[in-house]
Amino acid sequence: MPTPKEALQGYIDAWNAGDAEAIIALFADDAVIVDPYGTPPHEGRDAIRAFYEGGVKTGAKLSLDTPIRGSHGDRAAMAFTVELALEGAARRIRVIDVMTFDEHGKISRMEAHWGPDDMEQS
Amino acid sequence: MPTPKEALQGYIDAWNAGDAEAIIALFADDAVIVDPYGTPPHEGRDAIRAFYEGGVKTGAKLSLDTPIRGSHGDRAAMAFTVELALEGAARRIRVIDVMTFDEHGKISRMEAHWGPDDMEQS
Repeated sequence: MPTPKEALQGYIDAWNAGDAEAIIALFADDAVIVDPYGTPPHEGRDAIRAFYEGGVKTGAKLSLDTPIRGSHGDRAAMAFTVELALEGAARRIRVIDVMTFDEHGKISRMEAHWGPDDMEQS
Repeated sequence: MPTPKEALQGYIDAWNAGDAEAIIALFADDAVIVDPYGTPPHEGRDAIRAFYEGGVKTGAKLSLDTPIRGSHGDRAAMAFTVELALEGAARRIRVIDVMTFDEHGKISRMEAHWGPDDMEQS
């Protein structure tokens, strides 16, 4: 069972490999994704699959800005930058994800923190 | 009323000025602090005061690792490094804070993400 930090590194690596299945495998079947925080959640396996299959198709690449943080509980968090093309234009989005894990080491909740002014042309 | 990002920058600046009152003023009276996440919360004005008055006495200095992130809701988040002396030894702690704000622009909840292996000698 990966540690929470290893799972977050795996999330980054799977994105950069364009491997939606590897991302989805990190999540519990009843996981909830809130990305970005403040918008409606994606709940459960089918919604998670649709979210990441669509995401990977954008060709987005993720790079850590600073080492992944753990916690004294069931969470880990990371600050990273996403580079992607949206409607033909290169964009950079700065994000902080917080992931909560269940007792099986799967992500049960993901919350992505970024606002309109965290996206810029690149 | 400061934006959430401005409040987080104010939090950093107040720590570095050793100004516990300025930190405490950012919080709602009934705010909850979980630092680090996974340990018992500090709830309400008296607990918050004790927490930050003690914290500032350590002489800790905070520096952002990457720009503060906002959200599409009532939150902002930041990744930073703390340099402080604990029992005479210099320590570095890598942290990601997530702050939630109330309708008056005050912090209603703060969760700090760092684990035992995010602290090191410096």
